[in-house]
Amino acid sequence: MKFSAHFDAALAQLRRENRYRTFADLERLVGRFPVARYHGPDGVREVVVWCSNDYLGMGQAPFVLEAMTEAASRTGVGAGGTRNISGTSHPLVTLEKELADLHGKEAAIVFTSGFVSNDATLSTLGKLLPGCVMISDEMNHASMIEGIRRSGCEKKIFRHNDTAHLEEILQRLPHDQPKVIAFESVYSMDGDIAPIETICDLADRYNALTYIDEVHAVGMYGAHGGGITDREGLADRIDLIEGTLAKAFGTLGGYVASSKSVIDAIRSFAPGFIFTTALPPAIAAAATASIRHLKTSATERHLHQERVAATKSAIEDVGLVVMPSQTHIVPLFVGDPTLCKAAADRLLSVHGIYIQPINYPTVPRGTERLRITPTPLHDEHYIAALAGALSETWDALDIPRRRVAGEETIPAPRIALHRAGG
Amino acid sequence: MKFSAHFDAALAQLRRENRYRTFADLERLVGRFPVARYHGPDGVREVVVWCSNDYLGMGQAPFVLEAMTEAASRTGVGAGGTRNISGTSHPLVTLEKELADLHGKEAAIVFTSGFVSNDATLSTLGKLLPGCVMISDEMNHASMIEGIRRSGCEKKIFRHNDTAHLEEILQRLPHDQPKVIAFESVYSMDGDIAPIETICDLADRYNALTYIDEVHAVGMYGAHGGGITDREGLADRIDLIEGTLAKAFGTLGGYVASSKSVIDAIRSFAPGFIFTTALPPAIAAAATASIRHLKTSATERHLHQERVAATKSAIEDVGLVVMPSQTHIVPLFVGDPTLCKAAADRLLSVHGIYIQPINYPTVPRGTERLRITPTPLHDEHYIAALAGALSETWDALDIPRRRVAGEETIPAPRIALHRAGG
Repeated sequence: MKFSAHFDAALAQLRRENRYRTFADLERLVGRFPVARYHGPDGVREVVVWCSNDYLGMGQAPFVLEAMTEAASRTGVGAGGTRNISGTSHPLVTLEKELADLHGKEAAIVFTSGFVSNDATLSTLGKLLPGCVMISDEMNHASMIEGIRRSGCEKKIFRHNDTAHLEEILQRLPHDQPKVIAFESVYSMDGDIAPIETICDLADRYNALTYIDEVHAVGMYGAHGGGITDREGLADRIDLIEGTLAKAFGTLGGYVASSKSVIDAIRSFAPGFIFTTALPPAIAAAATASIRHLKTSATERHLHQERVAATKSAIEDVGLVVMPSQTHIVPLFVGDPTLCKAAADRLLSVHGIYIQPINYPTVPRGTERLRITPTPLHDEHYIAALAGALSETWDALDIPRRRVAGEETIPAPRIALHRAGG
Repeated sequence: MKFSAHFDAALAQLRRENRYRTFADLERLVGRFPVARYHGPDGVREVVVWCSNDYLGMGQAPFVLEAMTEAASRTGVGAGGTRNISGTSHPLVTLEKELADLHGKEAAIVFTSGFVSNDATLSTLGKLLPGCVMISDEMNHASMIEGIRRSGCEKKIFRHNDTAHLEEILQRLPHDQPKVIAFESVYSMDGDIAPIETICDLADRYNALTYIDEVHAVGMYGAHGGGITDREGLADRIDLIEGTLAKAFGTLGGYVASSKSVIDAIRSFAPGFIFTTALPPAIAAAATASIRHLKTSATERHLHQERVAATKSAIEDVGLVVMPSQTHIVPLFVGDPTLCKAAADRLLSVHGIYIQPINYPTVPRGTERLRITPTPLHDEHYIAALAGALSETWDALDIPRRRVAGEETIPAPRIALHRAGG
């Protein structure tokens, strides 16, 4: 093929930097989560998955599965069209009402993914607000960065979770100029949480809209699973709440909840929404069942937090460094891409434990890590096995434990980089 | 909410121009396609859908449904992660092999939608090829336009299907400069077909890569349902073939098939692929079942073409203008947005027939139309009822039939506009 040398060169560069990614071919097993069948180079075997974003295991909950198969057997597999051309299904309309209610907003709109939600919404917001400035946390997810770029707006980046820096930026902008502050509630690679209330105060003082990405929080935090804004009673102070159906809710798709006119405007102007096939009714029905359950049941959330705490303790008990995290994300510092990959390979081959290594560009260079996500279904047995396997692996590969008696954990350095986080 | 006047103003503008879209809330009914339950302002009633992009009704085929529910009951609802982080499922790997085989390519990559396929692939291609020029048919779909914009490349637009104009553009570019010619096989609003072979000849002569969008052709054309490039034996002359799983295959998602190194490079560099949750295994399994069936069965394709021909004849027999179309798309000219909407409303309310009006920006102003898509499941009874209902509606609303004895149909004017087509 013409010009193929360019593609080969780009791939060779990735390999040289130890950044070439290999996907693990898995078959999840309903009723046996977190166990999955791994199709590896040496055949098929069972492994324990410790890096799923199906954070609560809802993707295999019997009532979620039942909602999907029931809707599919009644209405078919695909949606059959874009939302405008025969693709708006009744289960999807119901889902959007459910999501608006979840966040206490007037309306919600569902997209085919969380990535598309951020990309389509931010780019459209920026185009509808004349002279808009996008003010973005430096650690925002790739999808927000893409949406902001696509908006064509002036972009200002504030240091991660640094409200003093945010205020400095806001102060310099004219009061009447449209502004959007875009940030996440839970940052998925470090597990830290944004100072939401202070950001809302600044938004009010300096006349800015607030846009929060709650994809790593919805379902898992708050009395009704509405995310960190639900837990902290701040949902009404956020103008646009973006979330996903593909993580704690266990299905597929993303969404934004906001005022009627904002949602109607995005619905009417975003190419990434207008010109794409709607989510299948069966997926919408499954998502609604999952959300409704987690609105009233706190069992999964409590058990989740217990298992997260137990996992952190068990790992620290064998002397490894869990990076500071305020949430269910358990990042285990390695600090070197080759070692990180080698650790993941050994965990898989020797211990039957699957944890994907997280290297640059997902995290800054020098902060390579294993990102562990315990779920309510990772019981004491799995946790003990994980801690033992990690300890063995760290010894076998001679990875520095970086913890000395009487000394604090060394947190990974923050690198100022407007990076991809997912 | 702050700045909400801007959103309200944008929506008011749409309403003034009769471009405000209302979505029909439908429930498809397995076993009764094309009948659906319509949730309208006056309650629920049954309607016949004549604008589905589930072109062959595969979304309700028993073996496709069965593949979906079987995979779901075995592996769960969602994928549980991005492709890199625990989201690569065995059914998805199998689907990608099936797609590569369908188009006779070395490899294929699945995205969450056709929109994302075009957007992510074209933008990434452009970034990997230094100094690349994107050469785009003026009628290309919104998703290709977005991808080309996002690539940041220089863009050249050639007049729709005009190979002389394309050659003029190519002639002026240095031979060694990377170039991509991006076009569609079937244009979905007019139903016309690109001069693929001539475009390939020009690409060879002037050293350009070819990128074809076959979303409105895969499953429906060619001995194995590989699209127009399959039918015309040209697949091996196209560098990248993009298709969808959400139209004739009846499921969800999009894909690109190409050489191993191109697919690997897109997989490795496209943010819209990397940072998004994978397609659910159950959807992948359903898509594979659908593709495998249509690879060997031509029954659906033959019946489809018969029903299309019968529909065109029936409409012409009542004296209405079917715009020239070489494919299964049956565009019925109206030429005025208000009349177009009124016709669709009357068809729905009086005749129980659902056809979405197609107005600007999906088609150029002055070419507003009803876009009818017959399927193998629209039998003689439905076709006769459609023709009668259209005739009554044209009379009732006094829409010009524009056909006089002895005079040819007046084709809609082509407007040079790099527009959205879906």
